[in-house]
Amino acid sequence: MDAPLLTQYITDRIRLTDDELALALSRLRPRQVAKNEVLVGKGEVCRQLFFVEKGCIRTYYLQQNGSEATRYIAFEGIFGTALASFISEQPTLEYVQALEPSELLVISRTDFYALLDEIPAWERLYRISLEYAQVLNTWRLESLISMDAKARHDHLMATDPQIIRRCSNRIVASYLGITQESLSRLKAQR
Amino acid sequence: MDAPLLTQYITDRIRLTDDELALALSRLRPRQVAKNEVLVGKGEVCRQLFFVEKGCIRTYYLQQNGSEATRYIAFEGIFGTALASFISEQPTLEYVQALEPSELLVISRTDFYALLDEIPAWERLYRISLEYAQVLNTWRLESLISMDAKARHDHLMATDPQIIRRCSNRIVASYLGITQESLSRLKAQR
Repeated sequence: MDAPLLTQYITDRIRLTDDELALALSRLRPRQVAKNEVLVGKGEVCRQLFFVEKGCIRTYYLQQNGSEATRYIAFEGIFGTALASFISEQPTLEYVQALEPSELLVISRTDFYALLDEIPAWERLYRISLEYAQVLNTWRLESLISMDAKARHDHLMATDPQIIRRCSNRIVASYLGITQESLSRLKAQR
Repeated sequence: MDAPLLTQYITDRIRLTDDELALALSRLRPRQVAKNEVLVGKGEVCRQLFFVEKGCIRTYYLQQNGSEATRYIAFEGIFGTALASFISEQPTLEYVQALEPSELLVISRTDFYALLDEIPAWERLYRISLEYAQVLNTWRLESLISMDAKARHDHLMATDPQIIRRCSNRIVASYLGITQESLSRLKAQR
């Protein structure tokens, strides 16, 4: 299977033999998804992990007041899923959705966990990815606690401008935890 | 070193040789801390991981309005720290504090990461702990989004009553994300 970005993701982080790399790649299946397609819905147990070869996916919550809270956005070259449900096999409150027409590589939970036993270094790859998730989640929480809307927007422009460039105002606002009106004012001020 | 709960924590999760277990335990140092003692302060890089042999520690944020938000409470038999800072070596916004007079086992970041190279199964132990942290963080976030105060209190009573039994009303309220007055009303209703 031709998976240049996934191959790079893996080899940037761990050393595998050619056979191990081929084994790992053989466990992923390509999947084309349309813009706005929902991959995992609230109430489901999430048993798939998605790698983005092209496009963009997000995870989000639908809040009691009907507004959306976007937790995580994954562009090309990274994994995304409703991770806690994938780990715990409990139903998720999160949705996983494609934000653009996307080319994904999908691995089932069963196959992913099997790789932990089949490829010794896979444990390290997963550990590094979990560390990244922990740092990112904490940063997201801390920015909501410690920064006002303008500081959050400025920081996003400085660290991850792709989100602002590629996503709609609705998505960016739901990622920053502000209204679209506030986002428009922030953009006008810059 | 006599560390019955840590030994159990490790052997419940991975298989080690006697030499590997001895090596791991040799890297931790006992530390006695007083009630309310702050182990890691806001703005520090957190370079220590704490295992609770006796007592209780928490991590919390001081919010802009002066109130505290308790993120995590660790009683006997589990690890706790300002994990994102420990991973990323970036300054933390979280405090780590003992809630009771406690007997901790402390390992430095350097020694902890060295164990990942020295003991192959340590990678798995850490991965399992990171998975637990991910599930717990997500559950905490989802309960704030999806449950009202009464449902959160009822769920805590059902799943982790030790927090309500052993911690002060101030701490329980800051863990549930409600005021102490609301907590008192909920307790009176039960």
